[in-house]
Amino acid sequence: MAKFAKRIAYMQSTADVIRYLFEAMTDPDIISFGGGAPAKEALPVELVHEIANEVLTRDQRGVQALQYGNPIGIPDLRQAVIDQLLTPKGVKADLKNVMIVAGGMESMNLISQLYLEPGDVVLVESPTFVQSIQIFKMFEAQCIACETDDNGFVIEDLEAKIKQYHPKMIYVIPTFQNPSGRTTSLERRKAIAELGSQYDIVVLEDDPYCEMRYSGEVLPPIKYFDETGHTIFANSLSKIFAPGTRLGYIYADEPIIRKLYEVKTATNSHTNVLTQILCAEFFKRGLYEPHLKMIRDIHRERRDVMMECIKTMFPNETKFIYPDGGLFTWVELPEHVDTTLMLENAKQHKVAYMPGKEFFVEGQPIKNNCMRISFGGVAPDRIEAGMKRLADVVRLYL
Amino acid sequence: MAKFAKRIAYMQSTADVIRYLFEAMTDPDIISFGGGAPAKEALPVELVHEIANEVLTRDQRGVQALQYGNPIGIPDLRQAVIDQLLTPKGVKADLKNVMIVAGGMESMNLISQLYLEPGDVVLVESPTFVQSIQIFKMFEAQCIACETDDNGFVIEDLEAKIKQYHPKMIYVIPTFQNPSGRTTSLERRKAIAELGSQYDIVVLEDDPYCEMRYSGEVLPPIKYFDETGHTIFANSLSKIFAPGTRLGYIYADEPIIRKLYEVKTATNSHTNVLTQILCAEFFKRGLYEPHLKMIRDIHRERRDVMMECIKTMFPNETKFIYPDGGLFTWVELPEHVDTTLMLENAKQHKVAYMPGKEFFVEGQPIKNNCMRISFGGVAPDRIEAGMKRLADVVRLYL
Repeated sequence: MAKFAKRIAYMQSTADVIRYLFEAMTDPDIISFGGGAPAKEALPVELVHEIANEVLTRDQRGVQALQYGNPIGIPDLRQAVIDQLLTPKGVKADLKNVMIVAGGMESMNLISQLYLEPGDVVLVESPTFVQSIQIFKMFEAQCIACETDDNGFVIEDLEAKIKQYHPKMIYVIPTFQNPSGRTTSLERRKAIAELGSQYDIVVLEDDPYCEMRYSGEVLPPIKYFDETGHTIFANSLSKIFAPGTRLGYIYADEPIIRKLYEVKTATNSHTNVLTQILCAEFFKRGLYEPHLKMIRDIHRERRDVMMECIKTMFPNETKFIYPDGGLFTWVELPEHVDTTLMLENAKQHKVAYMPGKEFFVEGQPIKNNCMRISFGGVAPDRIEAGMKRLADVVRLYL
Repeated sequence: MAKFAKRIAYMQSTADVIRYLFEAMTDPDIISFGGGAPAKEALPVELVHEIANEVLTRDQRGVQALQYGNPIGIPDLRQAVIDQLLTPKGVKADLKNVMIVAGGMESMNLISQLYLEPGDVVLVESPTFVQSIQIFKMFEAQCIACETDDNGFVIEDLEAKIKQYHPKMIYVIPTFQNPSGRTTSLERRKAIAELGSQYDIVVLEDDPYCEMRYSGEVLPPIKYFDETGHTIFANSLSKIFAPGTRLGYIYADEPIIRKLYEVKTATNSHTNVLTQILCAEFFKRGLYEPHLKMIRDIHRERRDVMMECIKTMFPNETKFIYPDGGLFTWVELPEHVDTTLMLENAKQHKVAYMPGKEFFVEGQPIKNNCMRISFGGVAPDRIEAGMKRLADVVRLYL
């Protein structure tokens, strides 16, 4: 067997956990708080059925849906993104600034492909999203973890690391962050955009949860404060439409989109047209707003149940974050508890979570006593049952 | 604006032509032989409509279709690929050997990501498919063009270049090659597999057209002759199902699939589930075989019309290839005719083709007098009209 490229070796550490969590998702006996899936009850099955039934005919858009498309995406969906997702955020975009991609994560791949050379430094929040770290590592970048607190990146530390490492990119999940559930404050959003401009650094703003807000005040994206084009706003349609349709978008200055067009072409030609059309119609028919309300109601309830479970079932010394939206909370157990080792025991108790260790950059300060637990994919009564199992497991380690 | 990675500069040359051809596809006045699209009449709009209507409900597979999936693809579709596409080719596969990807081209990206270091050599047919060259260049590989004749790679030249360049990969489109329409002979298929094994080289077999055979004898893939796992078989479901659904598959030894799982995860998480389910049902319901017959009938007629047009309308000194299948023929005009320059004139005559130059590796022997013309996406009467326009343009240059 021929030798793999050396970038592949950088990626190995987390694959087993991710694989396990994918498997846990398909075992009905396991109550999994491990994945990042939204509630299945929030998936627009009936709406997609109705739209598919109408558009999938030769006189409608059936031929377009099944034929080759354009690497930048169909105009209808890009326009819907502008009108219904970007404009309400206070940012001005036109069709030349928006590209459709095959799911939220593809943006990190395409933008890494566009910018990263081996050895380039990417500054990341600590903790941050494991799959993004995997992507940056695949491109042989060096991820440097920066300090965070309840308001996101600690700006003094971020600027100090900029001066020390001369990074190519800052990667940030500003709203209901994965894994912590934290939100970057308004002042810090502005500061991050300005640091990108000042030091000529790409700010990759990954904001898949921003629409899933259940409490607190709406904040503009970092991109809103960007005056030089250094910030690239990447988003997913998975949470507000449907993960299985693999749709996301990038909003950036035109010269960047033009180059991403080439990178996308050399990645997989274009995003699937059928689901682009279904999603465009979903927006055009005014279905998004009432659907979003329903999504928020379902997940707000789940968040509330999970928060209550942590308070009432978990040991007093447990620290946790109360998220204003999204799908996750972050639980910190007493320091001696290793949540990676605990996972084996959790499996036996038929409950799964994501060990916190996976969200830290290897070789840098790691907290072994944390876990990400997601309330998105589990019904309220199952959250209670699963949290009881998990609390039982935790107690074994105290 | 921050600086792009240097790999991006390697990719610039063909983007304008590809962009132009995408645009030509959407202008109804232009008869375009430039793209690689199959006949719109061959797209299974009604079948997909019927299947979507049945599966997109909560009690059926609607929830699965819209929820996150597995990076390797859904078992149903992988099994259908094994039973209905691989087994008939004489190759033995099980689920561990097959991965679903987001369209045929994504395989080239994922496999490049898995194997190619900057500076690695990829041996390619000359001419070969422009988009694959773009991908290899994005990974900073050096593409070395090898001699071909009517039976594919000239094996003596291929082996000489192996000894000279110590390549990492051989890239080959064995059946109804893009752009030439040529098919690699049985003996050479065996020889290429053996060269891969002997010299420890990845043989990337890209075979998207193999099912679209209109005449001549069926040949086994190169992978059939592979005894060491060096050959990776990549295929598209675009031509036999629908390009817009972005589906393809990779068939390889298990250790390779396991690594591709990680690369796919770090590219776009997984392929869209909705269209995987639609396509799996298409196969499971026995719809593939009659549909394939229809596809072949439609494209055989178009091939025949185009061949007749070349013979009767084009100058006598025109050389061309008679393809036994696929979507393309390759036309060689008198040596002084530059088909890239001629494209400007063709635009004015409202006809498009792909200049042959785009299919040669830059800095290596190029033929400026060739063009790829596709009969796939154009109805027979439009083929006649378009070929008449094109013959008029050609005559201006004689």
